[in-house]
Amino acid sequence: MLPMTEKQKKPQKLKARLPRGFVDRSAADIRATDDMIVKIREVYERYGFDPVETPLFEYTDALGKFLPDSDRPNEGVFSLTDDDDQWMSLRYDLTAPLARHVAENFNEIQLPFRTYRAGYVFRNEKPGPGRFRQFMQFDADTVGAAGVQADAEMCMMMADTMEALGIKRGDYVIRVNNRKVLDGVMEAIGLGGDDKANARLTVLRAIDKLDKFGPEGVRLLLGEGRKDESGDFTKGAGLNGEQIDKVLFFVGIQDYAESAAELAALVAGTAKGGEGVEELNTIRSLVVSAGYEADRIKIDPSVVRGLEYYTGPVFEAELQFAVTNEKGEKVVFGSVGGGGRYDGLVSRFMGQPVPATGFSIGVSRLMTALKNLGKLGTSDVVAPVVVCVMDRDIDSMGHYQRFVQQLRHAGIRAEMYQGNKKNFGDQLKYADRRGAPLAIIQGGDERAAGLVQIKDLIEGKRLSGEIEDNAAWREARVAQVSVPAGDLVEKVREMLAAQAEDRARAG
Amino acid sequence: MLPMTEKQKKPQKLKARLPRGFVDRSAADIRATDDMIVKIREVYERYGFDPVETPLFEYTDALGKFLPDSDRPNEGVFSLTDDDDQWMSLRYDLTAPLARHVAENFNEIQLPFRTYRAGYVFRNEKPGPGRFRQFMQFDADTVGAAGVQADAEMCMMMADTMEALGIKRGDYVIRVNNRKVLDGVMEAIGLGGDDKANARLTVLRAIDKLDKFGPEGVRLLLGEGRKDESGDFTKGAGLNGEQIDKVLFFVGIQDYAESAAELAALVAGTAKGGEGVEELNTIRSLVVSAGYEADRIKIDPSVVRGLEYYTGPVFEAELQFAVTNEKGEKVVFGSVGGGGRYDGLVSRFMGQPVPATGFSIGVSRLMTALKNLGKLGTSDVVAPVVVCVMDRDIDSMGHYQRFVQQLRHAGIRAEMYQGNKKNFGDQLKYADRRGAPLAIIQGGDERAAGLVQIKDLIEGKRLSGEIEDNAAWREARVAQVSVPAGDLVEKVREMLAAQAEDRARAG
Repeated sequence: MLPMTEKQKKPQKLKARLPRGFVDRSAADIRATDDMIVKIREVYERYGFDPVETPLFEYTDALGKFLPDSDRPNEGVFSLTDDDDQWMSLRYDLTAPLARHVAENFNEIQLPFRTYRAGYVFRNEKPGPGRFRQFMQFDADTVGAAGVQADAEMCMMMADTMEALGIKRGDYVIRVNNRKVLDGVMEAIGLGGDDKANARLTVLRAIDKLDKFGPEGVRLLLGEGRKDESGDFTKGAGLNGEQIDKVLFFVGIQDYAESAAELAALVAGTAKGGEGVEELNTIRSLVVSAGYEADRIKIDPSVVRGLEYYTGPVFEAELQFAVTNEKGEKVVFGSVGGGGRYDGLVSRFMGQPVPATGFSIGVSRLMTALKNLGKLGTSDVVAPVVVCVMDRDIDSMGHYQRFVQQLRHAGIRAEMYQGNKKNFGDQLKYADRRGAPLAIIQGGDERAAGLVQIKDLIEGKRLSGEIEDNAAWREARVAQVSVPAGDLVEKVREMLAAQAEDRARAG
Repeated sequence: MLPMTEKQKKPQKLKARLPRGFVDRSAADIRATDDMIVKIREVYERYGFDPVETPLFEYTDALGKFLPDSDRPNEGVFSLTDDDDQWMSLRYDLTAPLARHVAENFNEIQLPFRTYRAGYVFRNEKPGPGRFRQFMQFDADTVGAAGVQADAEMCMMMADTMEALGIKRGDYVIRVNNRKVLDGVMEAIGLGGDDKANARLTVLRAIDKLDKFGPEGVRLLLGEGRKDESGDFTKGAGLNGEQIDKVLFFVGIQDYAESAAELAALVAGTAKGGEGVEELNTIRSLVVSAGYEADRIKIDPSVVRGLEYYTGPVFEAELQFAVTNEKGEKVVFGSVGGGGRYDGLVSRFMGQPVPATGFSIGVSRLMTALKNLGKLGTSDVVAPVVVCVMDRDIDSMGHYQRFVQQLRHAGIRAEMYQGNKKNFGDQLKYADRRGAPLAIIQGGDERAAGLVQIKDLIEGKRLSGEIEDNAAWREARVAQVSVPAGDLVEKVREMLAAQAEDRARAG
């Protein structure tokens, strides 16, 4: 830190601003997220999963370095020391804390253990457009199930989740690959073994560019290297033609059923490649038995994201409809979640192997997708009825307060005007900007006569084109009525019902 | 840090443990909390409040030092520096971040602004029994409403919230006091002014012991001091008899209506005491107008917690039923939430005054209270139907998978057994410990015949005393049936319905 100058010492005016990479959530976003979470949870519950949650902090050593993207810097985590000098970190995903939870409570937990949880995770990274440092994930995990039937179940549950959210068949696909098969392919081209880890990583990164550069671009990245349009050169993995052909065959597989035998031959003789192909075959067979064809769950060896992290099958939920990106290009929306088998995560606490598989949905990203699809309708929450404050003596205020409580106790959203504006017109402006459906008005004369006015704030706004027989409807309703104070609740209910009917008619 | 010895350098086995003061949440607690939140939210929505949420981090300077308990150390917050050397902290409540949100978005926000939010807050404190470092608060705030009608509304909303949660009238009370009245009393006994802040704090702490030590104990603490049973002496505030009488009159007020005139006389001539009494009178008048008598909302000058923090009316939701504390003593359950007017919190960012009032519920503490009252029934979530795995060839597995998916798609919670145990008895034990209502069984012979067995796992467990005409019911149901595989869903639905009917009959 530089020493402070006189100028820096001066107290600056306190500025209200959020730390970079963090955002506030609006009512519309909160309601949309809650709605999504209810739908996702309903599917997970039906699959026999129960909720379990962990706190936001873990000891740093218990979290470990298990960030899915191995090229992410170690500083990607928010950490601090506790008063006993132990390092604690905010969780960067929901999987590592679950592993700690299972290990810590191993004797009380009945295996296999199916659980789900939604929660915030934190990444201490440079924020960017659409890249936040706090975001919500919704995870499901099965711990203690070694067979790939548990992986198959994850895939079907994700497919059902997409449909429960209103994403229609064909607009999504759950893509499945297997770390063991990739390891087998690597071994078959001579890139097995711990000393070849860097070379494998270069190959993985090249494969991950398949969507972006196509097979010919990836061929260059696997070989000598690739020059982009600006002339920048990316050094390649240095594979020979035969090696490249094998990798491109693997990631290019479109119809798994047709290519399975050739793939098995490619990895024959490798340590785990055959086992991986067998696992993919079993997953395919199980999901097809249950009615999930390749239009929903597709074996796709081009899925390589997170493969360094997982130990067996991996899955990715991809949305296939086109959106326009920030460069104006049409692209498929892409991944909204992923997962796979992580047999090492729990067992590092234990003296025994503990298999586990799981899936994580990026809630914010999925919400963006649903907005694109128009599947997040505008909220059906109606703004409150506003009771205007015409007189400010305690007695009058008591009357207004009584009106508003009567409405609320009848289940009607209502509020008394609480602002400074004494002018009636200003209060109506507030009610209008608030989107209030009705305003309740009672001045001194009305009070003396035991009456109350109800003003319909929607009626005046209706566009004549929206409703076919608008004229007929307008006749049936008036914009302002005067009723005995005792009939307030009943009349408000009636007018709100008429407005709801209008909305339904307008679609 | 001491230099590491050879022994310390040895890698220790990784131990799965949570940081001190943090806890995992069970399925039962999560479901109970969700249920509470839905009920609280429903009340707040009816009162015209909308959700707004802020992230967990704020810049430390934007949070300020506004912890409600002024005797809490400054180190009570979790803080770290961002990569640009700015200090960030995890929020310690939901009020300070809301103030930042309103100030940052002041031009877009329509005042008065009624919002609510539930979320985790963090306190970097020594954990203790029932004292956690991460816990959930549920807040409601109205910003931009200067009149005490907004405070009156908060009190009524809290009363309605308690009843919505099933806490009956008489078991709770919303207690109301006013910072201005207390300031007036302090001034009246010669403790006004900035230089007397420490003396006022000693008086406040003495008053706060009223529940614990009674008026005579507080009299000692306000005077020379008090010796407890162990002989330890607490130095008193050093007030004289007349001063003490005035303080004890103030905090001893039971029937506010009777004492309001005497209180007004006591604070007459002080800067804001009279204004404070007037505000309390107005609040009382407004809530009584709306039907909330002193059995629900009570003006009670003994409420002093947080008075240093707030600027006007303060409220506390207290549960009045007795519970047994850790020492075996009967005590009233006490506070489950509180709030008040904090006119300074938003305006410190602004060039203008921005009045605000709010209320915060301690969700975990309220959940403990509801458990005590038996208002959190056991969850009505039924455990999944378990499809047993009798044969492990792919073809058989495909059949089991199809069964389980058929059940799930019919809306029935179901799972295929995913564990290692091949023995049928072990799988039934799993289903039993899981609380599964039914088990589905299909061996080779049954498959050949197109049949499936459904075993009722609840029937065998029923205690004969629980249901009056148990024998008759037992006759009507059998513990295991064999049905054509095509009738599986229908028969499962029928058996689950019969079990639900049994539960309803058993109460």
